[in-house]
Order: sequence, then structure tokens, then C-alpha cells
Amino acid sequence: MERRLIAWLRERLPPHPLLRLGLGDDAAVIEMADVERCVVTTDLLSDGVDFIVGEVDPRRIGHKALGANLSDLAAMAAEPLAAVVSLLLPRDGAFELAVGLYEGMIPLAERYALALAGGDTNAWDGPLAVSATLLGRVTEQGPLRRDGAQPGDCVVVTGPLGGSILGRHLDVAPRVAEALDLHRRYNLHAGIDCSDGLSVDLTHLIEESGCGAVLDAASIPIHPDAHRLSEQRGDGVAPLEHALHDGEDFELILAVPPVDARRITADTAASIIGHFDGAPGLRIRDAAGTVRPLQPRGWEHA
Amino acid sequence: MERRLIAWLRERLPPHPLLRLGLGDDAAVIEMADVERCVVTTDLLSDGVDFIVGEVDPRRIGHKALGANLSDLAAMAAEPLAAVVSLLLPRDGAFELAVGLYEGMIPLAERYALALAGGDTNAWDGPLAVSATLLGRVTEQGPLRRDGAQPGDCVVVTGPLGGSILGRHLDVAPRVAEALDLHRRYNLHAGIDCSDGLSVDLTHLIEESGCGAVLDAASIPIHPDAHRLSEQRGDGVAPLEHALHDGEDFELILAVPPVDARRITADTAASIIGHFDGAPGLRIRDAAGTVRPLQPRGWEHA
Repeated sequence: MERRLIAWLRERLPPHPLLRLGLGDDAAVIEMADVERCVVTTDLLSDGVDFIVGEVDPRRIGHKALGANLSDLAAMAAEPLAAVVSLLLPRDGAFELAVGLYEGMIPLAERYALALAGGDTNAWDGPLAVSATLLGRVTEQGPLRRDGAQPGDCVVVTGPLGGSILGRHLDVAPRVAEALDLHRRYNLHAGIDCSDGLSVDLTHLIEESGCGAVLDAASIPIHPDAHRLSEQRGDGVAPLEHALHDGEDFELILAVPPVDARRITADTAASIIGHFDGAPGLRIRDAAGTVRPLQPRGWEHA
Repeated sequence: MERRLIAWLRERLPPHPLLRLGLGDDAAVIEMADVERCVVTTDLLSDGVDFIVGEVDPRRIGHKALGANLSDLAAMAAEPLAAVVSLLLPRDGAFELAVGLYEGMIPLAERYALALAGGDTNAWDGPLAVSATLLGRVTEQGPLRRDGAQPGDCVVVTGPLGGSILGRHLDVAPRVAEALDLHRRYNLHAGIDCSDGLSVDLTHLIEESGCGAVLDAASIPIHPDAHRLSEQRGDGVAPLEHALHDGEDFELILAVPPVDARRITADTAASIIGHFDGAPGLRIRDAAGTVRPLQPRGWEHA
């Protein structure tokens, strides 16, 4: 099955300028002469956790698997270079499923000039899992890290949050171009992508940076999906709660000095949603001006 | 659980000169200034296919997962640089299992100066799977590819084969140092590691090279495990058959011009076990001098 898939991929994949040796050998060879520092990230998605096989087109699963990894490159403000993909496929219909997954990955790879350099394909008696590892190039601005936020910086988010479970979590639009553009034009102190939820990811960022943050509830851009989800469920969970905790929005959360933050919000769709300070932990200011602690709870990886 | 594991790893992992940013961010940053071309390989191992959880110490599973990937770097004659590891863990005892796996990986990584740069750790309702992606540096001699064998070259194997299922398949001794040394000192035309079995892997090599090969049965080094396995099973499968088809020996199979092949066998434990020619397919010459086709059958990835 793996050889059949490699034959299919060899016909399907366009040549890539960085790929000196592609599929079919023990490993791929990638041109790195122009790469001073390389970013490496890996993300594994599995059936029942990140998607449900049978309920969704395999192409969307493939898209999400690659998109979530591209989002990690965006979080580092790195240029995509190459990817390798490992598949664990249920035996029944393994080849067809693998083709579907790649049909979702190939257009996304092409959009970001990402070389699909190789992988490992296995059939087994368990459910589907898709593991991708991506290489990216650190630009002259250096990597955008989690640990650079400073008291006084604004908390900036690149787009609206919440309700991704209605489908958007599959159709990841990684903020790669946005990250590279913002990192080149403005002074960014730190960044992370919103994969586990604003409250969780911002907590990671303040923990790594050794500071705290206060969110301004009224400023948080709430995605229409958060409103729809709240209405559909009718469980009393407000749209704001979805925006704070849902995750898988794949927007970027940035720490930006105020001058640059104001320029960013003037020039782009990004919003200032709070600020970093020297007090510990994450807090939120509600519409009445009351500040209370905000517990991180969202998609906690098990 | 993932954050607890990262905390454990941060205490446990030594600093690595190539690692500019390690665990805990969205991605790792690796120094690549001295790397012109980079080899990338990935191999995913799963419960019931590559090992059986419960029957074997998790440290040996971790060792095998990293060792099999190091063997792919050896097959390319590349210097190990860095690894990322994705784990899919059964929920029950996930942290302890992850620690066991890493306790098997860390000593092997240290031996080969491999930076454990990051990963993704997930618990789910399925069985254990371990995916590793390794980066290596192509040396001045270039990558050792599968497609360079020429008629007239000798088939060289770096060590004895067969019977790895008795336990050796877990205790992978990747031929990284041997590959780098041979590639520097001798003229090697092509290479592959013996993971799926001599008959299968040599078939990959001749297919990629567009030539054929004849093995000399009497010259194939048979591992004592192949004799033990044949005896234990008493199923009439000769030790030679195990050497030809078992796989997971993780020795290197090389295509080498005769002059260099003779020097290699004089200087090292490697053996000349046949030669490449212009006729199609893989064949074997038995003790009586009769040449017959040799069907590739070994560990065919599903």
C-alpha cells in the first residue's frame, strides 16, 4: 500500500526547488544553504480527538493536519520550507483514505510553497492518526517566541474567536503570511497561535514570559460562530465564553508595544484585547469595569 | 499531562549546542548555519506492529523508535542533528509510559549527539504509537542514495542478518558511525538500511537504480539468532531464509565498486554477498551454483 501511495504521490506532486531528493529513498534531502536557523514543529492529530472519521471528508482532515502545523510556523513567524507526514490508517480502505488526506494537504502545501518531502504510511487495527512535522526558516527578524511579553505590552489578536467546533476548526487558515508581514513591519515581543483557546494559550504566553495580563471583555472580537453556537446549544454559555475558551481558531495572540499595537490595529483586522502587566496570572475586566481572575480552560491536551 | 512531561524533559535533557530554542514554545529553533543540505526522515512505530506494549519495557520501545529513524539517517550517510517525537498514548498510565519511552530515547540521542528538540504528546482511547522525525546533515560526500547502484558493483552488507524477532529488532544499533566512515573512506554508489528484509530492501535498491542483482547464498552472513529461531520453531524454515527475509536487522546494504568492496571487507566486518548486473530482478545462486529468482518477501509495510 505504501509503495502504491508513493507512486501516486510521485505523479501528483510538483517538483519543488528546495527538494534535492524526494519520495522513495530512506529520507528526503532539502536545500538549506539559505537557512541560518530552522524552525521544527510537529503536531499529531487523531480520530475522536481532532476530527471524526466518517463524519468528515478526508480532505478536510488532511487540510487540518497540515494547517495546524503551519499555524505553529506562523506562531514563530517562520517561512514554511518542507513537511514530512506519517499516517496510521485503519486497514479497511487505507489507500483511499490516504489519497483523500493528501488531496487535502497538497493544495495547502502549494499555497505556502511547502515541499511535501516524504513520510511514513502504515495500516493497523487502530483508528486514524496523522502526524506532520514541518520545517521553517527563521527570518532576519528572528523567531517570534512565547517568552518575550513585557508589562505594558498590548495583547493583540489577529481575528475573531469562538465557535470553531461548528466546522472552522477543520478549515484552518494558518496566519503564516500575516505573521511574516507583522513581524517584518512592527515590533512584536512575543506570539503564540490560538489552538487550545485564548485563556489557555495566553496563560502559556504569560507563564513563559514571567508576567501577567488583563483582558478587556468588551474588546474581544467574537466570531459569528460563537454567537451561533451559543444560540444553537441554548445552554447559557455566552458567546464571550466561547471566544475565551473554545480554541482551534488558529489566530495569533501577540504581545506588542502600544505604539506598534495601535499601528497594527489601524492597518489590519487585528484587535487590542488587553494588556500585559507585572501582576501574576490572567484576569479579565468585564463591561462594568470589574476585574476578576480568568481561569484557563479550553482545549487542555490530555 | 503534556505540560508535566515537558517539565520533566526540561529537567532531564542536557543543553544542546544546535538548539537555539527547545521545548515549551510552538516550535524548536535549530542552528543550521553549517548545514548546506539537510536530510529529513520520519518513521512511525505502533503497538501490535512494531512492538507489543505490556510484553516489553517501554525504554526498549523508545530506543527502537529513535533507533529505526537513526538507521534511516545512516542509510543516507548523514550526520544526526535533531529529532522531534510525537506520542499517541493510551490514557491509562500515559505519563509513566511517556517517561519510559523517553528514558529509552535519551541515551541513544546522547550517543549520537542528537538534539531532542520537541514533540507533541497526546493521550487517546487507542493503542500506543510513536512517531519520530529526524534531521541530519549531508556530508561533503553527498547523500548516499538508493538509485546509484551500477552493474558490476558488489552487494555489501555490514553485518549478519536474520532472527531479529528474538529481540534484536528492539535493540537497534543504527550504523550511523559505520555509514559516515565508509562513505568518507570508500567509493559507495548506493545504500539502504535493512529494515524490511534483505530481499525486500535490495529489491527497492535495484528498482530505484534500474539494474538487477544476484546474491551468493554461501556468502550471506547469518546471524546466530537466525539459527536459534530456526531451531526453536522447528518449522523447516532454514536460517538462510531468515537472513534473506526477516528484516529489522538495521544493517546497511551497499552498492560498492569491486576494488572498494574488497578493501571494505578487509578493513571491517562487512561481507560481499553478491553483485549487481544488468539483468532484471533479484536472483540467488545456491550452494550447487544454480541461479534462481528470489522473490522479495519480508516485512512488507501494509
